[in-house]
Amino acid sequence: MAKSSFEYVRKFETEERCLPNTWIVIRIDGKGFHKFADIHSYEKPNDKRALDLMTKCAKFVMDEFRDIRIAYGQSDEYSFVFKKDTNLYNRRSVKLMTNVNSLFTSSFVYFWSEYFGNTKMSYPPSFDARIVLYPTNKNLRDYLSWRQADVHVNNLYNTTFWSLVLKKGLSNFEAEERLQRTLASDKNEILFSEFNINYNNEPEVFRKGTTIVRTKASSQKTNEKFVQGLEVLHCDIIGDKFWNEHTHILGPYS
Amino acid sequence: MAKSSFEYVRKFETEERCLPNTWIVIRIDGKGFHKFADIHSYEKPNDKRALDLMTKCAKFVMDEFRDIRIAYGQSDEYSFVFKKDTNLYNRRSVKLMTNVNSLFTSSFVYFWSEYFGNTKMSYPPSFDARIVLYPTNKNLRDYLSWRQADVHVNNLYNTTFWSLVLKKGLSNFEAEERLQRTLASDKNEILFSEFNINYNNEPEVFRKGTTIVRTKASSQKTNEKFVQGLEVLHCDIIGDKFWNEHTHILGPYS
Amino acid sequence: MAKSSFEYVRKFETEERCLPNTWIVIRIDGKGFHKFADIHSYEKPNDKRALDLMTKCAKFVMDEFRDIRIAYGQSDEYSFVFKKDTNLYNRRSVKLMTNVNSLFTSSFVYFWSEYFGNTKMSYPPSFDARIVLYPTNKNLRDYLSWRQADVHVNNLYNTTFWSLVLKKGLSNFEAEERLQRTLASDKNEILFSEFNINYNNEPEVFRKGTTIVRTKASSQKTNEKFVQGLEVLHCDIIGDKFWNEHTHILGPYS
Amino acid sequence: MAKSSFEYVRKFETEERCLPNTWIVIRIDGKGFHKFADIHSYEKPNDKRALDLMTKCAKFVMDEFRDIRIAYGQSDEYSFVFKKDTNLYNRRSVKLMTNVNSLFTSSFVYFWSEYFGNTKMSYPPSFDARIVLYPTNKNLRDYLSWRQADVHVNNLYNTTFWSLVLKKGLSNFEAEERLQRTLASDKNEILFSEFNINYNNEPEVFRKGTTIVRTKASSQKTNEKFVQGLEVLHCDIIGDKFWNEHTHILGPYS
Repeated sequence: MAKSSFEYVRKFETEERCLPNTWIVIRIDGKGFHKFADIHSYEKPNDKRALDLMTKCAKFVMDEFRDIRIAYGQSDEYSFVFKKDTNLYNRRSVKLMTNVNSLFTSSFVYFWSEYFGNTKMSYPPSFDARIVLYPTNKNLRDYLSWRQADVHVNNLYNTTFWSLVLKKGLSNFEAEERLQRTLASDKNEILFSEFNINYNNEPEVFRKGTTIVRTKASSQKTNEKFVQGLEVLHCDIIGDKFWNEHTHILGPYS
Repeated sequence: MAKSSFEYVRKFETEERCLPNTWIVIRIDGKGFHKFADIHSYEKPNDKRALDLMTKCAKFVMDEFRDIRIAYGQSDEYSFVFKKDTNLYNRRSVKLMTNVNSLFTSSFVYFWSEYFGNTKMSYPPSFDARIVLYPTNKNLRDYLSWRQADVHVNNLYNTTFWSLVLKKGLSNFEAEERLQRTLASDKNEILFSEFNINYNNEPEVFRKGTTIVRTKASSQKTNEKFVQGLEVLHCDIIGDKFWNEHTHILGPYS
Repeated sequence: MAKSSFEYVRKFETEERCLPNTWIVIRIDGKGFHKFADIHSYEKPNDKRALDLMTKCAKFVMDEFRDIRIAYGQSDEYSFVFKKDTNLYNRRSVKLMTNVNSLFTSSFVYFWSEYFGNTKMSYPPSFDARIVLYPTNKNLRDYLSWRQADVHVNNLYNTTFWSLVLKKGLSNFEAEERLQRTLASDKNEILFSEFNINYNNEPEVFRKGTTIVRTKASSQKTNEKFVQGLEVLHCDIIGDKFWNEHTHILGPYS
Repeated sequence: MAKSSFEYVRKFETEERCLPNTWIVIRIDGKGFHKFADIHSYEKPNDKRALDLMTKCAKFVMDEFRDIRIAYGQSDEYSFVFKKDTNLYNRRSVKLMTNVNSLFTSSFVYFWSEYFGNTKMSYPPSFDARIVLYPTNKNLRDYLSWRQADVHVNNLYNTTFWSLVLKKGLSNFEAEERLQRTLASDKNEILFSEFNINYNNEPEVFRKGTTIVRTKASSQKTNEKFVQGLEVLHCDIIGDKFWNEHTHILGPYS
């Protein structure tokens, strides 16, 4: 039972590190959340409680991992962006990825009842994670733009689809057929003419997703530790305006 | 807001796959569980509730991931062994690792109250994960032996340490000093002569950790799916006996 | 000009190691050798000088890298198999791959004139390399079988093709068309009926490729170093016979 | 002998690609060139023929691989920098690395006699290669600065060392002892006072290494292909001057 004769097995482990001086993005993504949403009666097309819970978890993660500069979430996914020069876990990708993912998952179950009240969780859900490196600010902004453009496409579709189903009584199949090969403008028109909905007046949290940044202003040194506030936004992050107003995200502040 | 102009960012993702025909081991490990155990008043040196909760989660994971052949757990860690020819997620290591880890984490929070009753969880805990490949049965058995030998070393130490502290009133520091440079035989002697404890009579769950295997016998085809039972053991897995009695673990059955 | 302020750039390097206890196969492959063969008037369908030069280089590589157990070559490629427990370069894959490849390349140019006499080399050729891991003896044998089966398929085709072109005067295009969708048996028949060639009587070096193994018998300790002989074979390595006669290749001898 | 039953072995291959939008540096490095230099009577401290041969090979490589923007060489090493957006071999790192390394090696043997005349090559030399990614222009310049600073440190040492040995008759050991713990200024002083050498007047090729860039001016479209000239420089590449004069190296020209 000599422990040492077995220890050679540690040599089979690998320790990949993230390329230095690149943005590290970790995206977590709900597994089988279509089913999870159905079973827990998520509201259609968007469930505000679920989005708020996701954001609560993201804030919890950002509170623990101080090198995250910005997070962006939508639907059942959240992306976390570590600053280019983070040295957390010596930039070991597996450590970064599994720790962030596990803490997010844990928080989701832990804080569930704060948002869903009496709706008991039927079974423990899970999230997968991936890690992606982006060398330049442009690449990183394009990544975030990609996720936000995804929200737009999906939410416009879902808003129209569920209007047809819930307000007009179409079956899922009929609604799907109706929307096949329609352009964005067609969907806007359906919403407006049939449901009196101006899509641009829909809540921004649904149309723009959720962006979490650290507030410089509110940072303060307490006797224990440096506390930073977190700001939750539902705004456009594709254009320059957001980035001009939050230069510290991409900048070299630490 | 053309989604397509941003989609190039997907090319920055990687997709590493596990070498075919090798055992895939995923080990999850509690992060900061010393503190977590203290805050939740885990019993010393072993908390049966915590071990049972860990095993509950491991069983839940094995129930979801049918290609796991055997799991082995101790303290705040669990190892899951996927069969050599699994093709789950096309053997993509990140997918395997984060999904198993997330489901384990989620279960830990979800099932907590079943084991800890009124002891409320103070904050969401997290686990990291790693993935290691072992080409041969011998390497795999040596890996599991390594983990079980680790239990032996740690548990003998902890049992003696906490006897000195809890029953003899030594401070943590004094107990540590007393045990410095002692051999296994010394600790056995302390336990026996000072506390009338025969270490070999201590509960096997503490001395041997927990092994979960699938029971062939209880497998049955129901109308919905093939249901396999899980057997929980606390036995030696370093010697040949266990493996001779469970040839289907390493064998080519599917 | 302080060297130290730049040295951080070394941290961008990676150091991947081959999984322990697996066969390491390095295959080198001529780049653009169709053109190279044409320019240097290689004989069709096989140029014995070229094959002999390739084998000379492979032997030179095996002489330098003593942990190579067996090499197998055909056409413009050669595979080198390092023993499972080699620790050369700490199993760093890039080091193994580039050193073997470079020495092979270097030898090819260096020994060219020994085989091609007055045919001057028109330009320096190059080879790429790859590294592949195989966990079991069966996987390794299947790899080598795959390469040898490849010889069979290609050589039968080439022998028939060039007979049609060189002996019957067909254009390349006509020969290609003639052979489209023919089976092995068809090609054997063409060779036999039209060219009086019994394919099985063709030289084994063309039909079986070249296998290089270390001879146990001829090994001898000289005052300087342990010298091992190399044996060059042109035999079947798909069946069991070869492996039964050369048990030391897969066995644990060092 | 069904080829198909073996083809599964291809699944064991991996295909790592370089992170997009990063500079790709491939550095080749002579293996055992101390010995190689001795056997071929390289002149000390620098052999102009050897350096010129290395540069000839580097130019040959740059002629073949048009996506290389700049090369930098010294002693028995050369670094090649591929432009950030190269798509050669789909950015597969192993392909890039082994092809560049093999062609360099091949050229070294091929062009040897052009530079070493009657000095016959005693045995085929080899080079290893590595590949490193740099995300920003600054990182890339720091990499090149690191290599050039290395030349400075080594060449000042070697110039002094070999002056002591060749002109003063010290043994290698004595010269080594004399130089232990000396600063750059000490070596400059030894050279000046004992050998009347002003180090700054030594040939730039020895003090600065060799930089190869593509000349924009001389580029011209011939009827066959786009021909670019190559310019060989021995200048400082640490300061800004070189980069200001060659903005097309880091710039987005293709």
